[in-house]
Amino acid sequence: MEEILTLAVDLGKEAAKKGFPATYIPELAKSDPSDVGVCMVNLDGEIFGYGDFLKPFTLQSITKVITLLLALEDLGEEEVFTHVHMEPTGDPFNSIMSFEMKNPEKPFNPMINAGAMIVTTLIKGNSAQEKLQRILDFTTKLTGNPQTTLHMEVYLSEKETGNRNRSLAYFMKSTGMMKGDVEETLDLYFLQCSILGTAKDVATIGAVLAGNGIQPFTKERVLSKAHARIAKTIMTTCGMYDASGEFAVTCGIPAKSGVGGGVLASVPNKFGIGTYGPSLDLKGNSLAGTTILEFLSRTLDLSIF
Amino acid sequence: MEEILTLAVDLGKEAAKKGFPATYIPELAKSDPSDVGVCMVNLDGEIFGYGDFLKPFTLQSITKVITLLLALEDLGEEEVFTHVHMEPTGDPFNSIMSFEMKNPEKPFNPMINAGAMIVTTLIKGNSAQEKLQRILDFTTKLTGNPQTTLHMEVYLSEKETGNRNRSLAYFMKSTGMMKGDVEETLDLYFLQCSILGTAKDVATIGAVLAGNGIQPFTKERVLSKAHARIAKTIMTTCGMYDASGEFAVTCGIPAKSGVGGGVLASVPNKFGIGTYGPSLDLKGNSLAGTTILEFLSRTLDLSIF
Amino acid sequence: MEEILTLAVDLGKEAAKKGFPATYIPELAKSDPSDVGVCMVNLDGEIFGYGDFLKPFTLQSITKVITLLLALEDLGEEEVFTHVHMEPTGDPFNSIMSFEMKNPEKPFNPMINAGAMIVTTLIKGNSAQEKLQRILDFTTKLTGNPQTTLHMEVYLSEKETGNRNRSLAYFMKSTGMMKGDVEETLDLYFLQCSILGTAKDVATIGAVLAGNGIQPFTKERVLSKAHARIAKTIMTTCGMYDASGEFAVTCGIPAKSGVGGGVLASVPNKFGIGTYGPSLDLKGNSLAGTTILEFLSRTLDLSIF
Amino acid sequence: MEEILTLAVDLGKEAAKKGFPATYIPELAKSDPSDVGVCMVNLDGEIFGYGDFLKPFTLQSITKVITLLLALEDLGEEEVFTHVHMEPTGDPFNSIMSFEMKNPEKPFNPMINAGAMIVTTLIKGNSAQEKLQRILDFTTKLTGNPQTTLHMEVYLSEKETGNRNRSLAYFMKSTGMMKGDVEETLDLYFLQCSILGTAKDVATIGAVLAGNGIQPFTKERVLSKAHARIAKTIMTTCGMYDASGEFAVTCGIPAKSGVGGGVLASVPNKFGIGTYGPSLDLKGNSLAGTTILEFLSRTLDLSIF
Repeated sequence: MEEILTLAVDLGKEAAKKGFPATYIPELAKSDPSDVGVCMVNLDGEIFGYGDFLKPFTLQSITKVITLLLALEDLGEEEVFTHVHMEPTGDPFNSIMSFEMKNPEKPFNPMINAGAMIVTTLIKGNSAQEKLQRILDFTTKLTGNPQTTLHMEVYLSEKETGNRNRSLAYFMKSTGMMKGDVEETLDLYFLQCSILGTAKDVATIGAVLAGNGIQPFTKERVLSKAHARIAKTIMTTCGMYDASGEFAVTCGIPAKSGVGGGVLASVPNKFGIGTYGPSLDLKGNSLAGTTILEFLSRTLDLSIF
Repeated sequence: MEEILTLAVDLGKEAAKKGFPATYIPELAKSDPSDVGVCMVNLDGEIFGYGDFLKPFTLQSITKVITLLLALEDLGEEEVFTHVHMEPTGDPFNSIMSFEMKNPEKPFNPMINAGAMIVTTLIKGNSAQEKLQRILDFTTKLTGNPQTTLHMEVYLSEKETGNRNRSLAYFMKSTGMMKGDVEETLDLYFLQCSILGTAKDVATIGAVLAGNGIQPFTKERVLSKAHARIAKTIMTTCGMYDASGEFAVTCGIPAKSGVGGGVLASVPNKFGIGTYGPSLDLKGNSLAGTTILEFLSRTLDLSIF
Repeated sequence: MEEILTLAVDLGKEAAKKGFPATYIPELAKSDPSDVGVCMVNLDGEIFGYGDFLKPFTLQSITKVITLLLALEDLGEEEVFTHVHMEPTGDPFNSIMSFEMKNPEKPFNPMINAGAMIVTTLIKGNSAQEKLQRILDFTTKLTGNPQTTLHMEVYLSEKETGNRNRSLAYFMKSTGMMKGDVEETLDLYFLQCSILGTAKDVATIGAVLAGNGIQPFTKERVLSKAHARIAKTIMTTCGMYDASGEFAVTCGIPAKSGVGGGVLASVPNKFGIGTYGPSLDLKGNSLAGTTILEFLSRTLDLSIF
Repeated sequence: MEEILTLAVDLGKEAAKKGFPATYIPELAKSDPSDVGVCMVNLDGEIFGYGDFLKPFTLQSITKVITLLLALEDLGEEEVFTHVHMEPTGDPFNSIMSFEMKNPEKPFNPMINAGAMIVTTLIKGNSAQEKLQRILDFTTKLTGNPQTTLHMEVYLSEKETGNRNRSLAYFMKSTGMMKGDVEETLDLYFLQCSILGTAKDVATIGAVLAGNGIQPFTKERVLSKAHARIAKTIMTTCGMYDASGEFAVTCGIPAKSGVGGGVLASVPNKFGIGTYGPSLDLKGNSLAGTTILEFLSRTLDLSIF
């Protein structure tokens, strides 16, 4: 396994040369594009890591899986899906035009920004502060890490430059899709995006999903089997932005990427995989991440199809 | 003439029964749908009014003509049209999807909300307060009224419910189209929309345009001929929302409507016409206004074509 | 006047260097981009021409005005506008997406390809052959030329490569907008587009419109005043493709261009203008034509606004 | 198993009451909406059927899987995917506007009509007749049936009314996406859609995919493992029209539906499932089919996630 991961990281480093870290959030542009790491966590809690797999990065869109799971645990499947649909779109993650064109009653899925913001409004809590604390605590429960922290510079950077998300949110407010205070929701969303984690943390979350809700270190059930399955399904159809269909064909593993450079992957009944590599392709997916996952899928025959 | 205007108002009252005042701004919904007035002001400053032509209403989108004129006087044609285009769109006034779809470098024209907001950012002034004062002073100069005031309830109502405009503004901010502070611009835009005027005031502005820039009461030049012509042209192609093409065929007079119920019309070299009637059709145009203008155009052969 | 037209043609020749003839119809690509001509015909039938104003070219989209007028004369305003709307769109002339997006019951206006095809289906006649003959006879009546002929190579070239128009037509057939045999209608439409005319012919048509329906040479009424007015109005709002709004501002004369290089313009109550110059800008308008018309409008103060 | 299938068909019959057979192809509208059948074929070639599982119906969009597989076998993965992408779209199956809006170089995926038509043009053969024969022979190889036949009335009905598909095809021809003669391709596509099969046949194709390319009755390899996997993957992300995402969540089985009322499903390494029931929901999926598959997935825990 060590040999395979070493080779995987080498391939990832090579692929990373073809892209750049995200530039639309100035703070993210400072990431070192040559950082590459991979980690696998199996259902027994065994950890196999190589490269920069203990280097923290902001989880960004990977938190869309975390808040979807928390909302499902808070409210149940039926209630959550009255507020957000589960259909892939083929549109970029920050697209707004389909709202005007198709006039839907809810965002298309929880993995695009619009849907993720709506999911965030569903999290239980009497205040934004309490909601944030619950998201952090739930992340801690998933990763088994003693503490989950935020990258305040990235948060502030995103808050300052997040006008497209602001536009999306006010659009949803204007149609009645979004309830509550828009700026408060945006603030919570930007905070959530700046949650820090490592490839190991992300692999652990993948292991929870692979194990149908059982945390691999504590053996504690932290999710229902049904909710773990929903997450894996939506990751497959919508998790890699508008390259989800291609990734399903070339890799065949449920996965969710973030512009911070991480990818969360889950091989059902086997293990979770986390990758890190901040150099992105044009769709916003980590070049090292997709390269490593395709290599592992091919080498270890991991496709679910 | 009195007979014609009497008949026009009667037709307008009848037409008004087929619609309702704007409801998306709660304060506007309180307007009396049976109010109908018309006024004509010729180049000699003679005034012919009938019905509720002295009843004040908020000018709303009619102010898009005022700020376009002020920006043209402030900066000149060339500079203004580097920031906003002059093409009709066929889209609703608050449409946002064309921005994402066509990725233009500037809004399509100054008569849709997006373009009007950009025009507002161009008005000279060291502060929002100073810009507002200059818009009010310029309106006073056009109408010849001693004072131009605002309807504060409508302003506050619009500010509270203006999330679609907020979405538009943040979208333009995210692409770099909109400079400066978004909330300050929105605030100034909502204030501008709440400027009060009567059908007589609006007719007077129309007379200024008809007279190629000469105020009909004071005989003072308040606009260059070129700018008056630009306003009349853009009113013709884009002034009546996405019914501009049809209005050009049925009426043939440069005109701009507002959801407050007013319509500003200008018959080149002849006179200005102002109408009031808050009951709107589905496109947002005053039912009484379009009916009266079509009747006057037919009866007095006013089409420019 | 001769001096002015000489200068106009010189400016046109200069402008023509910035573009190329239409390439999407192979036969059109063979035009000589340095050909430039202009002609004015006043209501007394006086002709002022300069440059290549007697060189025949295919009228292409200029025939959209001719068939609109014939359909209006055949069926009346009310009937025609139950089949086609009169709203500018801001979309390219061959756009199809708005049909799917907005699901309209009829094409947006008779100056885009979709609308023009529908207008062609409205022309009276028991067969395609008879309809074509009626279009040719009506063109002869407008231009006062003894005979109107077709450019068969351009027709065949357009028929062979007209797949986008074929796509548009079958879309309209599928929604029920287009009646009758699609291939027959397309054939008639391609034939119509290949009608030959000169800048003088086009100027004469402009003079008929300027004179409210009176042919300037024969003094015969060939159109009702109302229909002449409708044509001038729709030319103003929709005649210059998706540059109609800008052309209205910079020139202010009702005009219709064709990708064959011609522009038909009409100055109400004064004269018609025809221009020829096959080098086109990116929107499909003749560079020489728009340059000449803007120059004449400015020099002779021809704007209708 | 018999008990489960009996119950499944009962549930399917109940669900079928909420819809109607496809009406856009007149011949399909004649189907009996109360027909419901299900069949399972495992990797050993054992057959479990209930209800109308031997009643032939036209495979329609299910043939998109067949031609994709044949094209993959003919040309290989790399070549096929230079002509068609593999991304879900969220648009209806006959959507055309994304082509104009996003100007892609190839259709979005092989399960929408545009992509399927392109795949059909890739099938090897010196004539349309030879290509059709190869598609029929390949279908025979997959189903193990001695003969594959066509429903000529449905073919003719579809050919006559298929103007939306004609529009799509000519659009792709105009952009250069579609090679060859359009009418010939459309004819072949309509013929392909009218291929007849039963729920048992469809289940057998599902079993071939489940068995990674081995025909369950003959034990012959009829497909490479890689191509079987690609088909299952694309069925999961794009197989159930614009309800694919929801079906993945509620059922979790790779599946492809057709408006003829069939659904082809494949449970990897286990068995194929075929269902029949011509009453459709608003997205075009068989109501009995989706109901039966969700029931079987839940009861037998078949989700791949």
